[in-house]
Amino acid sequence: MARRDKLLLSSSAQERAVRRLKRFQIEVPSWGFANTGTRFGKFSQDAAAVDLGDKFADAGITHQFTGMTPSVAVHVLWDFPGGFDKSVVTLARKHGVRIGAINPNLFQDQCYKFGSVCNSDARIRRRAVKHMLDSIEIGRQAKSEHLSLWFADGANYPGQADIRRRKKWATSALQKAHKTMPRNMTMLVEYKPFEPAAYFTDFFDWGSSYLFAKAAGPRAKVLVDTGHHLLGCNIEQIVAWLIDEKMLGGFHFNDRKYADDDLTVGSIDPYQAFRIFNEIVAYEWETGRDLDIAYTIDQSHNVKPKVQATIQTVCMVQELFAKAMIVDRKALAASQASQDTVGSEEILRRAFLTDVTPLLKVVRKAMKVPADPLSAYRASGYEQQAAVQRKAKRKALGLSEGGSYA
Amino acid sequence: MARRDKLLLSSSAQERAVRRLKRFQIEVPSWGFANTGTRFGKFSQDAAAVDLGDKFADAGITHQFTGMTPSVAVHVLWDFPGGFDKSVVTLARKHGVRIGAINPNLFQDQCYKFGSVCNSDARIRRRAVKHMLDSIEIGRQAKSEHLSLWFADGANYPGQADIRRRKKWATSALQKAHKTMPRNMTMLVEYKPFEPAAYFTDFFDWGSSYLFAKAAGPRAKVLVDTGHHLLGCNIEQIVAWLIDEKMLGGFHFNDRKYADDDLTVGSIDPYQAFRIFNEIVAYEWETGRDLDIAYTIDQSHNVKPKVQATIQTVCMVQELFAKAMIVDRKALAASQASQDTVGSEEILRRAFLTDVTPLLKVVRKAMKVPADPLSAYRASGYEQQAAVQRKAKRKALGLSEGGSYA
Amino acid sequence: MARRDKLLLSSSAQERAVRRLKRFQIEVPSWGFANTGTRFGKFSQDAAAVDLGDKFADAGITHQFTGMTPSVAVHVLWDFPGGFDKSVVTLARKHGVRIGAINPNLFQDQCYKFGSVCNSDARIRRRAVKHMLDSIEIGRQAKSEHLSLWFADGANYPGQADIRRRKKWATSALQKAHKTMPRNMTMLVEYKPFEPAAYFTDFFDWGSSYLFAKAAGPRAKVLVDTGHHLLGCNIEQIVAWLIDEKMLGGFHFNDRKYADDDLTVGSIDPYQAFRIFNEIVAYEWETGRDLDIAYTIDQSHNVKPKVQATIQTVCMVQELFAKAMIVDRKALAASQASQDTVGSEEILRRAFLTDVTPLLKVVRKAMKVPADPLSAYRASGYEQQAAVQRKAKRKALGLSEGGSYA
Amino acid sequence: MARRDKLLLSSSAQERAVRRLKRFQIEVPSWGFANTGTRFGKFSQDAAAVDLGDKFADAGITHQFTGMTPSVAVHVLWDFPGGFDKSVVTLARKHGVRIGAINPNLFQDQCYKFGSVCNSDARIRRRAVKHMLDSIEIGRQAKSEHLSLWFADGANYPGQADIRRRKKWATSALQKAHKTMPRNMTMLVEYKPFEPAAYFTDFFDWGSSYLFAKAAGPRAKVLVDTGHHLLGCNIEQIVAWLIDEKMLGGFHFNDRKYADDDLTVGSIDPYQAFRIFNEIVAYEWETGRDLDIAYTIDQSHNVKPKVQATIQTVCMVQELFAKAMIVDRKALAASQASQDTVGSEEILRRAFLTDVTPLLKVVRKAMKVPADPLSAYRASGYEQQAAVQRKAKRKALGLSEGGSYA
Repeated sequence: MARRDKLLLSSSAQERAVRRLKRFQIEVPSWGFANTGTRFGKFSQDAAAVDLGDKFADAGITHQFTGMTPSVAVHVLWDFPGGFDKSVVTLARKHGVRIGAINPNLFQDQCYKFGSVCNSDARIRRRAVKHMLDSIEIGRQAKSEHLSLWFADGANYPGQADIRRRKKWATSALQKAHKTMPRNMTMLVEYKPFEPAAYFTDFFDWGSSYLFAKAAGPRAKVLVDTGHHLLGCNIEQIVAWLIDEKMLGGFHFNDRKYADDDLTVGSIDPYQAFRIFNEIVAYEWETGRDLDIAYTIDQSHNVKPKVQATIQTVCMVQELFAKAMIVDRKALAASQASQDTVGSEEILRRAFLTDVTPLLKVVRKAMKVPADPLSAYRASGYEQQAAVQRKAKRKALGLSEGGSYA
Repeated sequence: MARRDKLLLSSSAQERAVRRLKRFQIEVPSWGFANTGTRFGKFSQDAAAVDLGDKFADAGITHQFTGMTPSVAVHVLWDFPGGFDKSVVTLARKHGVRIGAINPNLFQDQCYKFGSVCNSDARIRRRAVKHMLDSIEIGRQAKSEHLSLWFADGANYPGQADIRRRKKWATSALQKAHKTMPRNMTMLVEYKPFEPAAYFTDFFDWGSSYLFAKAAGPRAKVLVDTGHHLLGCNIEQIVAWLIDEKMLGGFHFNDRKYADDDLTVGSIDPYQAFRIFNEIVAYEWETGRDLDIAYTIDQSHNVKPKVQATIQTVCMVQELFAKAMIVDRKALAASQASQDTVGSEEILRRAFLTDVTPLLKVVRKAMKVPADPLSAYRASGYEQQAAVQRKAKRKALGLSEGGSYA
Repeated sequence: MARRDKLLLSSSAQERAVRRLKRFQIEVPSWGFANTGTRFGKFSQDAAAVDLGDKFADAGITHQFTGMTPSVAVHVLWDFPGGFDKSVVTLARKHGVRIGAINPNLFQDQCYKFGSVCNSDARIRRRAVKHMLDSIEIGRQAKSEHLSLWFADGANYPGQADIRRRKKWATSALQKAHKTMPRNMTMLVEYKPFEPAAYFTDFFDWGSSYLFAKAAGPRAKVLVDTGHHLLGCNIEQIVAWLIDEKMLGGFHFNDRKYADDDLTVGSIDPYQAFRIFNEIVAYEWETGRDLDIAYTIDQSHNVKPKVQATIQTVCMVQELFAKAMIVDRKALAASQASQDTVGSEEILRRAFLTDVTPLLKVVRKAMKVPADPLSAYRASGYEQQAAVQRKAKRKALGLSEGGSYA
Repeated sequence: MARRDKLLLSSSAQERAVRRLKRFQIEVPSWGFANTGTRFGKFSQDAAAVDLGDKFADAGITHQFTGMTPSVAVHVLWDFPGGFDKSVVTLARKHGVRIGAINPNLFQDQCYKFGSVCNSDARIRRRAVKHMLDSIEIGRQAKSEHLSLWFADGANYPGQADIRRRKKWATSALQKAHKTMPRNMTMLVEYKPFEPAAYFTDFFDWGSSYLFAKAAGPRAKVLVDTGHHLLGCNIEQIVAWLIDEKMLGGFHFNDRKYADDDLTVGSIDPYQAFRIFNEIVAYEWETGRDLDIAYTIDQSHNVKPKVQATIQTVCMVQELFAKAMIVDRKALAASQASQDTVGSEEILRRAFLTDVTPLLKVVRKAMKVPADPLSAYRASGYEQQAAVQRKAKRKALGLSEGGSYA
């Protein structure tokens, strides 16, 4: 049980790590650059994106400083309000990014007050399914490979709704969508144990998403949003199970203290995030192949400047993934086999406590991005410039942000 | 351990219960009648209140059907936007209600992004204190007896803010407010362990509110919002402690499943709400005096019609309080003294499981309100009429509700 | 939305309810009558069972007063220490009960410190499987229809163990057991999110038990222990899903406030227990058939006298099941279809708040048991007599109970 | 916001850090070296301490390898069963350690089934107080400076006990103890939200311990056990508040995933432990004085070898404290004042992510202990030797460990 005071990788191991980290890409969400808030109101930022061009510009600058975010997850309602639009694809390309996962929006319209695909009103269910099919068509034309599904469906009160009937309605909707998807598209089925529905949500845990995905068809997988778990839940175990079942389709990364706080990755519990990456890296180490997982950020930055927060979180993901790559897996396996609890734990934890900055420097140099992307971005003047331009744009458009609680 | 198959109160006990229940009043919040939502958007109801007149009308109709809600908690920013206004008092009276607790609003303005009384910027802190003093003045003129304080202050990330410094700033602000309050006014200091701040809130639990109130002055007390507790917390114990310390100033009633769901009382865990009332009734039984507590509803009805939800919750409070009144306290004390665990529990639980509808009928008859206020209201046509009128009013004013996530 | 002030069932509905309640049986665990404790020590009760005869006698007396507990779940290690023993069956019969579910014990022996079927040592895994096969043989001879499996397997520390490898080992063990089970035996796969393992447990939630059971074979189902869920979890939803998937094999009933407290049913949250029964009754109402579920009590009575606690909990199950039977399901379905949130909730909650004692009286009369089983038992003198006899027995055997923390 | 790729302390800052770390001492509990378990049974370790001599020897070897644990917390019932005994003091000294905090045991005897100082039976309360006074006398003679109080008092069921009456009984008991304490003794009042009592515990959170301590007298302070908090609780905030109120008396350190798991420090959430130390170091930095806090380990090592686990945890405390010492506090204060959320967070988090091994090497060299205490201990042969000797001792004494669940 050698104490890893510093990073001691063999040169071949280091080369492997650098290669893997260079391949590691993570999608950023278009909605992460706009003003968002809590139910008590929105706090506006001058530099927040006003329109789709701003969002792609912000994603592009993130990619420019990190080299890790070539694609942008889009929300159909906000980003393709009128169906597929080639100019959107062009706009993204102009900013150095491409369209990523397609996210139908099935929670914002007033008609979805009592649910979308689980609504007891068949007309609303049909409308929801139609929106899903329209979204698939947009994705097909935009050459997106992921249909990312989150449903706000649920109930606030016992008695309000029939759990089993809703399960059947949701299954039927997913099957219709699956049948429509082009061959190269994967359906990602997200879950969330609470919020906005308070008493139950129809897609409530990994088990429910697993069964929904299995019922939908072979190209449906589970999407794990790290913030969407009950307190005390062991998230890395769920990840390990889904990997083993070949049902892990993607991640929405964020952190939280209590509820679905949508905080930046590793801001509250970096060791837990590390342990999630550890399960991925362990599997890749065993099999010698990269897992085919859609890595995405899903955060809501109420008090942090949007691009700073995104760069910060992307770099943190990279740093924690790098830490997972330096775990001595042979030693760990041997230690586990000999039931040396203290020794096994130390092997894992020492990797986490090791400073991987030197490794990241090598990686970033190879990727031709700054050694410290966050500091470089903060020094670049982009944010100040965006604030001036976007403030003026808002004024010209007569836009006011905000929105009060009651 | 007699099984209470039916309600067997002596006639003197029944008279005492009826008298107490007739005295039981609960305040409703003006903001509970307007459209509210989650961070994902607002769901609009045609019958939701558009303006202050509608709010007082809805409070008045609630009082008319329940006889229990003669006062309305007001939010300064929304209900007295220009300082004290005698016409507001008159408007309330016109609808058969009066102004209750004054609630400053220290969370909605953009300047409060990083806190109000705990903001590291002294100018914001001064502005927050000034708003509190203005609110007190409104309260003085409106003859309100309660200054109800909830602060959204806190931080989203470790390192973001200095916990101890903020504690001192908050203490100083409360002391200034307390000094300004008229003699007959009580300051209610609310707490909330999370939301909207995600990493810490400055007023985070009953212990913090207790110390803040003690530092503020003798007329400051703790306000318990039943939904503002960590999972697993024993709320009735906190209530018992605050009663014992003579520091329980008031309640905000609601229920929740996971987070601060603002659901109607007793919708998720009615037995827990009963146990809270049990602590109050036990103390009143021992001392022969009513506790001086400000009972208030604080809910956010996203999917329930506002007035229905308010009547439903007010009646549930009354029903659970009535159940607490039929606990055989002499038998319970004797059973506890003999350490008969099963017997003691049965005495308490049987009171909860007893049907108190006959008792409530007597009370409601004496109060000249319908025997079943909720059904009577639903049959009254008020909601349908309000929907038509308020829809027209919104149209005339050019108002559109809603507001999307991003 | 009629308010159910009293129980108004049509006579045919009442007859149906009485018939169903007469068929409702619930198994009691042999270990629930012996002294148990917390990790800080055991509190001894004079009347606690000393030997297997006492356990069967206590189960028998419970059955005598409730008419609901004809069978006893047994723990192989404690109740069949030497393999199948016909005299045990006879002893049970003598006390008016029969052998119920067979529970292998895979957590007590020192060899299981690092797990049983998931132990990284193949010899321990083989020993664990052998114990399961031996248990199945005992069950076959005792004509038991259920193999009830709970594994304490897990890890206390990150790095200690390999989650995916353990998943495979467990799957293999379950498959061996399933292959060995006689045709009429059902395997019940329990789950538990924490304790005794602190970092992860191998059978950690319903999703994991579902997949384990599916991998084991067609006669493996999920066992839901109501206390084995993370805080905030919606247990009735899991029950509804398992019913819909035809994978609900059985229950271990208890209640809890925070951890796995093993309290009597409905002692902390009776409304939640009611909602669980509501899902069962709803399905039976729709299909016209009783669900084939193994209902079992699993509690640990540290401060309550064992038999009292068992009778109390059995009667509470019956009472809550009866409340679920009086839900007006036609009205509820219509109300849900019209998206009347308040009305739907009231229909469900009013059933819960209705006093079903009159109905229970009819049922108990028909079952020839006392109208108030708990009071009748307390008045019977059984406990006092047992205390005297068992104290003497302990003295004669030189037994001392207790056991300190460190 | 400079990225701290490596440790860049000025030489004066480094000297200050080394001096502070050399002064940092942490007490180990005598009970941490004996076999313990869960309610399901104890797992025995051959090398676990059999008697008091073994415990002191283990504490001594921990001190020898870490230089940080010169004192041992003792449990009166187990370590001073017959009252003060000078030979115990001598025995400790022989092993290079001294007697630390005195812990009365008020939970193990059968008489405490329904509580100790809160028992409704006045005789039990008197007995509990007498045991406290006896413990104080032992402490006085052993020159202990801390009376460490944990009460298992509480109730398992609603109705079982009277919360307010028990509060008064506990207050009275603490006052009697406080009056008896010698001038140089501090009373530490621990709290625990659940376990072993399941429905409520009488000392349930920091607010309750605060009020109990204030009522007891000026030398009573709050003891924070890091594992004794509800999920989602912000422990570092409680620590900051108690520091500000001058009421933080001491710590029991451990970590947990869900319940009171008594795991080694930083094994689940090292960042949280770091943030607790950060509050301490921040205060010491502001005032230039060490806080007078009793640091103690309180863990229960079921699957880890006892001494290894203790050395591991002590070193982790030291490492996390060292990380807290390298936070750039001037930069942090300036960043917070300018409301730079991202920058402030990075300053704090980068200190956590910095490798402090070089600093620890300097400290350990100055303390004349091995650079890597855990590895050095594992290589020392102590454990193997202890296993042989203690196995023989157990055999000679006819001791068998274990103890089953039921």
